[in-house]
Formats: sequence, C-alpha cells, structure tokens
Amino acid sequence: MSALQPQNKQGQNPSKTPSENPLDILQAQMNDDMVAVNQMIIQHMQSDVALIPQLANYLIAAGGKRIRPLLTLSCTALFEGETRSEPTRLSENMTRAHKLAAAVEFIHTATLLHDDVVDDSDERRGKPSANIAFGNEASVLVGDFLFSRAFQLMVADGNLDVLRILSNASAIIAEGEVMQLSVQNNIETTMEEYAKVIEGKTASLFAAACEVGPIIANQGTETVQALRNYGLNLGMAFQVIDDVLDYSSTREKIGKAVGDDFREGKMTAPVIFAIQKANGKEKEFWQRTLGDKKQNEGDLEKAQNFISQHDALAHGMKLAHQYGDKAIKNLNMLPDTPLKQTLVDLVSFTINREY
Amino acid sequence: MSALQPQNKQGQNPSKTPSENPLDILQAQMNDDMVAVNQMIIQHMQSDVALIPQLANYLIAAGGKRIRPLLTLSCTALFEGETRSEPTRLSENMTRAHKLAAAVEFIHTATLLHDDVVDDSDERRGKPSANIAFGNEASVLVGDFLFSRAFQLMVADGNLDVLRILSNASAIIAEGEVMQLSVQNNIETTMEEYAKVIEGKTASLFAAACEVGPIIANQGTETVQALRNYGLNLGMAFQVIDDVLDYSSTREKIGKAVGDDFREGKMTAPVIFAIQKANGKEKEFWQRTLGDKKQNEGDLEKAQNFISQHDALAHGMKLAHQYGDKAIKNLNMLPDTPLKQTLVDLVSFTINREY
Repeated sequence: MSALQPQNKQGQNPSKTPSENPLDILQAQMNDDMVAVNQMIIQHMQSDVALIPQLANYLIAAGGKRIRPLLTLSCTALFEGETRSEPTRLSENMTRAHKLAAAVEFIHTATLLHDDVVDDSDERRGKPSANIAFGNEASVLVGDFLFSRAFQLMVADGNLDVLRILSNASAIIAEGEVMQLSVQNNIETTMEEYAKVIEGKTASLFAAACEVGPIIANQGTETVQALRNYGLNLGMAFQVIDDVLDYSSTREKIGKAVGDDFREGKMTAPVIFAIQKANGKEKEFWQRTLGDKKQNEGDLEKAQNFISQHDALAHGMKLAHQYGDKAIKNLNMLPDTPLKQTLVDLVSFTINREY
Repeated sequence: MSALQPQNKQGQNPSKTPSENPLDILQAQMNDDMVAVNQMIIQHMQSDVALIPQLANYLIAAGGKRIRPLLTLSCTALFEGETRSEPTRLSENMTRAHKLAAAVEFIHTATLLHDDVVDDSDERRGKPSANIAFGNEASVLVGDFLFSRAFQLMVADGNLDVLRILSNASAIIAEGEVMQLSVQNNIETTMEEYAKVIEGKTASLFAAACEVGPIIANQGTETVQALRNYGLNLGMAFQVIDDVLDYSSTREKIGKAVGDDFREGKMTAPVIFAIQKANGKEKEFWQRTLGDKKQNEGDLEKAQNFISQHDALAHGMKLAHQYGDKAIKNLNMLPDTPLKQTLVDLVSFTINREY
C-alpha cells in the first residue's frame, strides 16, 4: 500500500496523474482509514481456536483489491467536507465507517471461502486457494465464522438501517450464487438470467458497501439511493469484466488459471453472446463442453476462437461500459471534489483493468 | 404434531401424564405458537430461485425435534401470565417470539446443512442428507441463505440485544465447529477440550434460544442469566447424550447410522473416557482407528466393547446428569407453573431419550 497521506492528494485532479491508476489513488486518499480498517480486520479475526486466524490470515494477507471496504470508506468520506484535511482528527462517522468497512470485507471474504469450495477452485490471488491449503471443511466453517463476525461488528455499530442493508445483501448474494448453480451447464441461459446472477453474487454487495456511507453520514434518501445505484452498476461492470478476463487474460495477471469458468460450465457474458450467434456445429460444441461437461484438450482454445469470431468479448466490454455509464451518472448530484473524481475514474479503471 | 390446545394442559401436572413425554407436552403447550412459527419458516424460506425452497423444505419437512424454537417460545411464554389462557389473543411479545424462534431454527438449519458437508454425512432424520440429495455446493449456499434470512428476521424485530445474543452465538457455533475439526483424530483430546467444543457447537445456541425469551419479555438481568444458563446446561446434556447414542442406539431410532462419530474420528465423551482408562493395547487400537483413520470391519464393535468394559457410556450419562441438574437449578427462581414444570421435565427427557 502507498504511504501517501490523504491530504497530499486533495489539491490534485487524480485523473491527471498518469503514473497511478484510480484504485491506487483511492487507496492513497483513504490511506489512514484503510490502515484503521486493516487493524480492525486483524483484531476481529482473532480466536482462541488457532485454525481460524491462520486460515483467515492466509486469505486476507494475500491481498486482493479491497474495493468494497474502500467504497464504504469513500462513500462516507464524501460527506466529511473540510474535516478530511485533518486526517489525524477522525470524525465519529469515519470511525463507524472503519468498523462497517471491516464488516463488508468479512462478508466478502466469507463468500470467497465458500465460493472456492463450491467451485472446487485451485487458486486464488496467486496462491493455492484456502480449500486446497486447509481443506473444504475448514473453509466452510471459517467462512461461517467471518460471516458471524461481520454481524457482530454491525451490531456493535448499532444502526438498524445498516444491519438491514447488509443482511439483505447477504441473502441476495446467496440467492445469486444458488441461481448461478441452477443455470450452470445450461446453454439456454439468457442474458437476463446472467444479469440477475451477477447482480446477486457481486453487485448487491458493491451497492450495500456504497449505501452504508451516506446512511452513516445521515444523508437524504435521494443521495443514499444515488450512491447505492453507483455501487450496483459499478459492481455489474466489475463482474462482467471479471467474466471477460476469464477468457482473455493470463494466469500471471489474474492470479489464477484462465478458463476456470469454461471448465466449470459457468454461463457468463462471453459464452452467452457467442452461443446466441453460434451455428449448428458451434452449438453442438457448446452443448458438449458446457452442457454435458465433456471437455477435451484444446477445447478452451476452440471456445476462445468462437468467442473471438463473434466479437463476444467486445460485446462484453460494451455491456460493462453501459453499466459504467449508469454508475457515473449517479455521481452527478454530488459536489465536485477530488474524491468524487476518483470514484468517477474508478469506473473506467474497473472496466479497463487486465487483472 | 399433537392437535392438543395449550389450555388443555394448564391445569395438569405434565409429569403425571405417563402416555406423553415432556417434549410432546411442550409441543402441545406451545402448539398455536409452533403453528405460527412453522408458517413463518415456510414464508421466509421462499425465493425466486426454486432450488432454495426445494432444498430448505427437504430438510425442514423431514422434521426434527424443533427443541430450539420451542425453547424461545416457552422462555417467552413463561412471562405471559394469565394471557396464555386465551390462546387466540396473542400478545405482542409472543408475536415477536414467533419471528425469533424462526430465526433460531434457520440458524440451526444452516449449521446442519454445513455440518453435513463438513462431515460428509449420508443420512439425516431418516433420509439421505441434503448434501447427498442436492450436492455439497447447494448445501453450502442454501445454508448461507438461511443464515442471512435469520439475520433479516432479527433485524425486522429490531432489538439490538437479541441481535447481539444471536450473532455472538453464531460466531461461537462456528468456533466450536472449527475446534472440533482441530481436535478430530487426536486421541490426546481432553474432556475440557470436548466440553469447549460442545459448548460452542450445541450449547451456545440452546443458551441463546432461551435467553431471547426473557429479553423479549423485558425481564431483569438475573432472570435473563438464569434462563440462559438453563439453556446452556440443557444443551450440554443434549450433546453429551447425542454422543452417547452414537455408540449405543440403533439406526432405526436415531434416523442415521450408528458409529458416525467413530468413522469420522470425532473425539466425544464415550471415547475420551474409554481412552483415559485404556491399557497399552487398547491405546494402540484407538490410535490406529481414530488417530490414523485406519479402520477395518469389526472395529466399531471392538470400540463399543472397550467403551462398555470401561463403563464409558455410564460415565457419559453421569456427566449429562450433572449438566441436567445445573439446568434445573436455574429454574428455581421462577414461580411454579405447568410450563416451568415441563421445562424441568424436559431435562430428564433429554437425558433419557433413545433418539
């Protein structure tokens, strides 16, 4: 993490700093707060049962983008006004945001642990996934523990609106994951079903992470709704790009094998677009490889070729841009500040990232 | 479920009704409330994603004793006084108890789904367990969904003390389960470690289920603590007996294979007692079968013989009785009512049950 202090960035237009991407800039702007969140995370993943901090630390120390807690922090800080120029004097709102950003990251970590069990994954963030390193059993149970810890943090904060928002998001995440499982290996899956899956499994937590900010800052319904919609659409764009990268990136860049979605028969934007344009022979290929799970060597490359022939990745990028545009529009109502600009820039970073 | 109405029982001493056991009597006393809880459960396990109600219904419809929601209902009803003689006119407290009893049952159901994945179980409540019928993936995710639903129900109730009690219990359950995993196959496990495991995985939810009652009914700290301790000790006795039954009951009675704990290398009261008294040759047997997981045909019977030779089941029964006595003592402070008497009688039923 950069050692830059938030005030160093206040006078600049972040988009004018080509050497740093908007995520780095956001991390710098929220640096003191992220230090506090990380301390909160480490403190609350402790337990007398040694395996819990061992496993939690294995995943959390491996990094990750920390986008969700950054969203909670920044969507609270947007309403801090001048107090943000004195980073050592924290407002009560920011102290609450630290706790809730940690809760958001715990919910996310719990879902990652369970996802890797469900998907039988091998790698995550460039190392063997926790289910491989510690076993499925421990991954399921430590996921449950972190999920409970998230609720304990929210209860300690004591705001029922926040509890409602994040318990709703948790239920919707699980619904999205189950729906993904239900349509897996079904090559008739529509783009509408896909949108519902990714709204549940990814966008709902992005939305909630953002919504918590203006709730803490006691903002009106319109502002709360705008930031919720910013998060929702950013999350949709984020997941569409994740799904595009699974067919186009490299192992080195995304920290896990490319083609995982193909091997698991997940119905994501690139394949759904390609299947919509497929001829009879191609449809047979998709049915055999995704529908009937009969994959031979070279099939991933064939799939990538069909996807490329039908411009399905470009189609995915276009979809992500549509969500991105909606995300940005929701920020229009906010006064222009460097932090708002970073949140605007974060959208195109999310879409154009290669990992 | 019995069709008896609660008021039919009010004038009797339930222990004087030899044809019905205390659990049946409690179910009859709480019948109208349990009907409401069951409606609440069915209503809140619904989802547009069809697999969720299918799987949840598979497990919930299979029955189970419903002890935990019954505890929440009865520990609220204890403070209803005369209003309980008019079962059709529900108090606000009882309406809240229905919601929270459903939340407690959802937490329990979620842990059952995850346990069966962790233990790789085949049977539950006399039929194939959900992980066998629907797969591990769906069991993990629907467990997460039900867990989230539990929190949504608590948030709808809106009492932060209840949220604190049940989110603490959820974290402690997960800790207990992870600890059980950590000591599994370790024949050096002590009775103190065993007590900590079962307090976490079982007794903590019994305790919370009971504690919620006097919290709803706005009782003082002493009463809240007494009912919490009743639940805690009842839960300890309940789990010790479960562990005894796994070596002594029959498949027909417990609805799953006997000897599951042995096959999984779980360190429970019967084997810990037997190992404490084992000679060198027996220690080698336990190390091979539980420690090194090398089991041959006939080993379960050998284990049962060693357990029997050292009176380890009787030792387990004695331990359960000790917890049971503590549970009952905590009820002394309450006025004598038929419902209190049923809660007293429930303790010996829990200890002497054969399933």
